[in-house]
Amino acid sequence: MAEFDLIERIKRETAAARDDVRVGIGDDAAVLAPRAGQELVVATDTLVEGVHFPAATAAYDVGWKSLAVNLSDLAAMGAEPAWATLALTLPHPDEAWVTQFARGFAAIARTHEVALVGGDTTRGPLTLSVTVHGFVPRGDALLRSGARAGDAVFVTGTLGDAAGGLARPDVAALRERLDRPTPRVAAGRLLRGVATAAIDVSDGLLIDLGRLCDASAVGAELDAPPPLSAALRETFGEPEARAHAWAGGDDYELCFTASPAQETVLRAAFGRLALTRIGRIVSSPGVRVVDAEGRDVTPPRRGYEHFR
Amino acid sequence: MAEFDLIERIKRETAAARDDVRVGIGDDAAVLAPRAGQELVVATDTLVEGVHFPAATAAYDVGWKSLAVNLSDLAAMGAEPAWATLALTLPHPDEAWVTQFARGFAAIARTHEVALVGGDTTRGPLTLSVTVHGFVPRGDALLRSGARAGDAVFVTGTLGDAAGGLARPDVAALRERLDRPTPRVAAGRLLRGVATAAIDVSDGLLIDLGRLCDASAVGAELDAPPPLSAALRETFGEPEARAHAWAGGDDYELCFTASPAQETVLRAAFGRLALTRIGRIVSSPGVRVVDAEGRDVTPPRRGYEHFR
Repeated sequence: MAEFDLIERIKRETAAARDDVRVGIGDDAAVLAPRAGQELVVATDTLVEGVHFPAATAAYDVGWKSLAVNLSDLAAMGAEPAWATLALTLPHPDEAWVTQFARGFAAIARTHEVALVGGDTTRGPLTLSVTVHGFVPRGDALLRSGARAGDAVFVTGTLGDAAGGLARPDVAALRERLDRPTPRVAAGRLLRGVATAAIDVSDGLLIDLGRLCDASAVGAELDAPPPLSAALRETFGEPEARAHAWAGGDDYELCFTASPAQETVLRAAFGRLALTRIGRIVSSPGVRVVDAEGRDVTPPRRGYEHFR
Repeated sequence: MAEFDLIERIKRETAAARDDVRVGIGDDAAVLAPRAGQELVVATDTLVEGVHFPAATAAYDVGWKSLAVNLSDLAAMGAEPAWATLALTLPHPDEAWVTQFARGFAAIARTHEVALVGGDTTRGPLTLSVTVHGFVPRGDALLRSGARAGDAVFVTGTLGDAAGGLARPDVAALRERLDRPTPRVAAGRLLRGVATAAIDVSDGLLIDLGRLCDASAVGAELDAPPPLSAALRETFGEPEARAHAWAGGDDYELCFTASPAQETVLRAAFGRLALTRIGRIVSSPGVRVVDAEGRDVTPPRRGYEHFR
């Protein structure tokens, strides 16, 4: 299968045609029309087999996840997705694998009206690197750096499910969160002008919130339990479920800060997507978990970091 | 070394600050200001150790080449480079390697005023995937699809040197072309409004010109010898040097079509960069090499293709 065919196949599976794509796949580069008055938001994330997904992961799910984790970065900026490029390194050209991969990639691309505009395929160990492009009105991007003491700390959805799915791949509800995460794109856009800072939870809540706090030169005190799914609680029991929620990676929920007064309005806007206030921003650095009596119960394991 | 540190180190080595970068490395995504009235040109290319560069290649050269091959795609579109993202997969965090890699990447980034705006590092087999962004005035991008019968076929520089350097790594002048290719960015911009079609020579002239011809629904007859460097001719002798020139990959020269009447003007504009007319576009499909007597002497090997 030629390089062109692989990318062409994924393109064919991706229904979303966009009129801001002047030249798509098939030339030396894509030619795109940026949106007047908006800023371009660009994120790149790589998945390596055995590092970011188990070697046994279905091709459909690999395709889905490779775009989902990038859309999650756009969500954390409050951006509206538009275009993606894909660099796919494959050990050998396997037509069935590529077809399923393309279907998974295309399914989430269609959901968010993302056009695949370029890419390349090379021979080598299974690695996927996706770059996504989105738009945000000038000056409206959500940054990590705007949190202030007194802000409330919120998270969307439930935490720890993906880590639970890695530990217990037999539990379908958890494994699905690991394999086909849902980027919170709509929620991110609702946070424009409301959140003071935002980040997506990719490496674990404590570590990602720590990054937000570092960027904002503040700290956080988490005094409320993390949101847990019924499946996670039933599979592991409350204490272990909480440990997964604080430190598990790959959830791709949004963690953000906002005035506590915004909670009611946000809850109504989010509809079925759960919103949980888990703590507050403080002026002293560091992220601490405290119990009902105010005792420090911060777990020793904070998350997953490459190369540490 | 943390992920952030690796990318941060490359960013520090890259002097080019651009005022169209609103938010660079360090948040979930970059925030960039596209240029009013211009189109965005985006290309992605991946290098895998042992496939796109020999395992013994110096880290500096890997850094240089990873950006150079992408800038070559922008050159082939006539675009002015602006921003890049880098996805770097490394088997283990080697500080000396990363520092040298960063210097090579930064050296060519500075030359073309490219800002590194994002990226990620992961653990795995050495793979580099770069996405570059550039600008071209609306409607001015050079495409593969505009060649017409009667156009002349031109190439910049000399061909076959990189393939020669792969075969004879002891010949420094050839090896340098393989390890530190020069993207023809300035030449590409001069071709706006002049070339009818363009492509960069990455997989071999015959195969890349074949792609241009396919996109334009024409063919090409190459009746003039390819431009050869003295080093290539001296190392291999004329017949083998020509074989490298027709089918060798990794030269990153531009191959383009234009009215024969443009040759004098282009030659003057290109200055020291060699320009060679190697043939002409014909209406029948396919790329043929013919000798002075008009006999078909097309070499059987046309270039390098992945996954064929």
